[in-house]
Amino acid sequence: MMNENKDYVKEITNIEEDFAKWYTDIVIKADLADYTDTKGCIAIKPYGYAIWENIQKYTDEKFKNSGVKNLYMPLLIPENLLEKEKSHVEGFAPEVAWVTRGGGEELDEKLCIRPTSETMFSTMYSKWLKSWRDLPFVYNQWCNVLRWEKETRPFLRSREFLWQEGHTIHETAEEAEKRTMQMLDIYQEVIEELLAIPVLKGRKTEKEKFAGAEATYTVETLMHDGRALQAGTSHYFGQNFTKPFNIKFQNKDGKEEYAYQTSWGISTRLIGAVIMAHGDNRGLKLPPKVAPIQVVIVPVALHKEGVREKAQELYSKLNLKFRVELDVREQYSNGYRFNDWEMRGVPIRLEIGPRDIENNQAVLVRRDTGEKITVSIETISENINQLLDNIQKNMYNECVKRNKEKTSIAVNLDEFIRIINEKQGYIKTMWCGSEECENKIKELTGAHSRCIPFKKEHISNSCIVCGKPANTMVVWGRQY
Amino acid sequence: MMNENKDYVKEITNIEEDFAKWYTDIVIKADLADYTDTKGCIAIKPYGYAIWENIQKYTDEKFKNSGVKNLYMPLLIPENLLEKEKSHVEGFAPEVAWVTRGGGEELDEKLCIRPTSETMFSTMYSKWLKSWRDLPFVYNQWCNVLRWEKETRPFLRSREFLWQEGHTIHETAEEAEKRTMQMLDIYQEVIEELLAIPVLKGRKTEKEKFAGAEATYTVETLMHDGRALQAGTSHYFGQNFTKPFNIKFQNKDGKEEYAYQTSWGISTRLIGAVIMAHGDNRGLKLPPKVAPIQVVIVPVALHKEGVREKAQELYSKLNLKFRVELDVREQYSNGYRFNDWEMRGVPIRLEIGPRDIENNQAVLVRRDTGEKITVSIETISENINQLLDNIQKNMYNECVKRNKEKTSIAVNLDEFIRIINEKQGYIKTMWCGSEECENKIKELTGAHSRCIPFKKEHISNSCIVCGKPANTMVVWGRQY
Repeated sequence: MMNENKDYVKEITNIEEDFAKWYTDIVIKADLADYTDTKGCIAIKPYGYAIWENIQKYTDEKFKNSGVKNLYMPLLIPENLLEKEKSHVEGFAPEVAWVTRGGGEELDEKLCIRPTSETMFSTMYSKWLKSWRDLPFVYNQWCNVLRWEKETRPFLRSREFLWQEGHTIHETAEEAEKRTMQMLDIYQEVIEELLAIPVLKGRKTEKEKFAGAEATYTVETLMHDGRALQAGTSHYFGQNFTKPFNIKFQNKDGKEEYAYQTSWGISTRLIGAVIMAHGDNRGLKLPPKVAPIQVVIVPVALHKEGVREKAQELYSKLNLKFRVELDVREQYSNGYRFNDWEMRGVPIRLEIGPRDIENNQAVLVRRDTGEKITVSIETISENINQLLDNIQKNMYNECVKRNKEKTSIAVNLDEFIRIINEKQGYIKTMWCGSEECENKIKELTGAHSRCIPFKKEHISNSCIVCGKPANTMVVWGRQY
Repeated sequence: MMNENKDYVKEITNIEEDFAKWYTDIVIKADLADYTDTKGCIAIKPYGYAIWENIQKYTDEKFKNSGVKNLYMPLLIPENLLEKEKSHVEGFAPEVAWVTRGGGEELDEKLCIRPTSETMFSTMYSKWLKSWRDLPFVYNQWCNVLRWEKETRPFLRSREFLWQEGHTIHETAEEAEKRTMQMLDIYQEVIEELLAIPVLKGRKTEKEKFAGAEATYTVETLMHDGRALQAGTSHYFGQNFTKPFNIKFQNKDGKEEYAYQTSWGISTRLIGAVIMAHGDNRGLKLPPKVAPIQVVIVPVALHKEGVREKAQELYSKLNLKFRVELDVREQYSNGYRFNDWEMRGVPIRLEIGPRDIENNQAVLVRRDTGEKITVSIETISENINQLLDNIQKNMYNECVKRNKEKTSIAVNLDEFIRIINEKQGYIKTMWCGSEECENKIKELTGAHSRCIPFKKEHISNSCIVCGKPANTMVVWGRQY
């Protein structure tokens, strides 16, 4: 099998040779997305979009169980709203797109396409909030946003992308802070349980936090090449927006007070994370829970009597329990079809041919390990169920293992530079807390601070840059 | 109960006095949507959005069962793409919004925000399609679109709205035509089964068809005031787009051929249809299947021992089977709470007080008829289940009845004018097929042709306008 398909597999760039090229090869050849005539914007194809739908469904259920309600706010934000919170507009204004004409006329006030919707939510919240009895507002929207990026990459950094943005307001700072953490925990669950990618949780430094936030918390992930990817963020705003936007309520004592606010989001970037965390030289590798197709049935010797019927029968049976595809493309060789589904990352390939039918069996092939398992048709549902579970766990464990291998400690700058150039990954150091030292590391190494992890560690007594006393441990890494 | 709450109910404009004002009262006071600082664009509030989520879920399942796959195309369409199909650009260019600046710079080519995405889908389809083996493409996206309307009304005509747009290409004209009808049938199911609104199915006249379509088919609905609302459309394009967009494939004989195309859509307009088809002077009236809250439990005498506990117990039990809300707002009177939930259109109000608890019973109040039914706690789940079913059917039947009352036949123009001014509704006439006669009716009466119904009827032998021989029966009506 390996030999006859060499040609086919060669079409994907080797993952160790050029990871960036490998990535775009997978995006295109596994039919996840395609480039469009709108510069910097992709079309998410059905196979890629089905992954997003699975992420949405899993996440939205967790949201709703935690009291989140969905709504929908306008796409276009008038310029004067965007400008109300100073550091927010400074952060976002350079990368927005402006609508200046509509209905054949120049507009009096230009409208930006939302890069994020704090300003719109805040405006409406100020209108809707009257009393402490109305609180909290725990609202979210699944929508598109647009940021005019200079350099784009499918899923990772697209001008338009899909995401959810949750925006909440609360009676007290404590309640808002609790919600910030609660949503970060949900992101951890989605990314670890569904996408089988372990996360590093922590707080962003002042330099890396969201424009306008009091504090930004993050779930960071590590990719195959040792670069980090920020997979989700949750922000605590305090009263930074509620004051300029006048989001006030009458408290229990009858006095007016400003509310406390949060926002949090994950995006189609997660599809990029799945590709880069799990993929290999045979292509995409999808965790069973998020895979649009969990089992592909590939009958061999389709022309032989009874094969097509048996495959169809198996399909009808298994399709009740799993997401199943039946491949009866006679124009392609077995090898081509095997490789095609491997490239698309389907967790289990089910092969069945005349001899299998004779023996009332089928062969299950694992995408993650390549292992082949012959099972009886009688028990095949249970076997698949168990196998999908094993694959999900194994893929997660493989990432945990890689994270360990690619996590280092550095106590001086030379060591830091050597590690980042040799194996990338997460690098832990002590840090004095100054932005100057943070900038220095970025200049010298291209690494950004990922976060100050919630799990504190004490590595040494002094900042890796300036040598001054340091109590804070930071994880650094080059990023997507 | 009726007396104590007169004040509250008075806040809604009388439905017979000013239907337009009644409508916006409901939108705002039932918390469905609100006006925003972005002119012509609304914020869809959680209660309104939950209706849309229910419509989406119901429709999307039917789509997927019929072989539809979801994907996502860019929001922004370069000007040159929009211009490729002549009658399409003529139809849409006047009402688009243009992005002319991005990332701090003027753009070389302006980008329009999609008013609909035929041009984007066609461009990608031309890239993706190679062989007859690839066909059909049966793809859909749930997304936002923008049309720069001069006069807007929440849900009915909003500059930005949410919808689904399906776009398919096929090997043959027959297959494409079949898909056009199949999707129209699905719309009928969604609107009749889920929204309890009967539809009139037919073909749009040439004048009323979609810009660029060969034929447009429609599901029309009739509102409380006798005006019609186009609730969904399905278009057959033939090769009108596949030729200018070069969507070709190699057919089974190895020859190049242009594909055949369709598109179809329903939108958040349907929320407007639900309001206007079912609502009354007490407010919104939601069909149980689409209602975000199917049963609201309103305990009376909350301060009495055991009431709150019993209500909570009932909530926990019923919430497993139905969408239930528990109202324990002690700051409001019973009457206020009763009316509040009636205004929000919740199909069943469940009242429970100390005497009910003593007798192991509860009172169910129907929103559609006002009927009160005392039931035993033992059988309450089955009672509610049955009642929701009855309400759904009754609401549908009420609309069927009104449609009959408000459907007339006219054999001359005087009669037509008299009917449209007296009771509006659907008016059936014969029509010669000329756009001139169609325009004449619009000028004289403000009515548009709704459609040429699939169910043919022969009313007379001559066109109602010009008197020439006529074989075509058309249904007319003033519209939203």
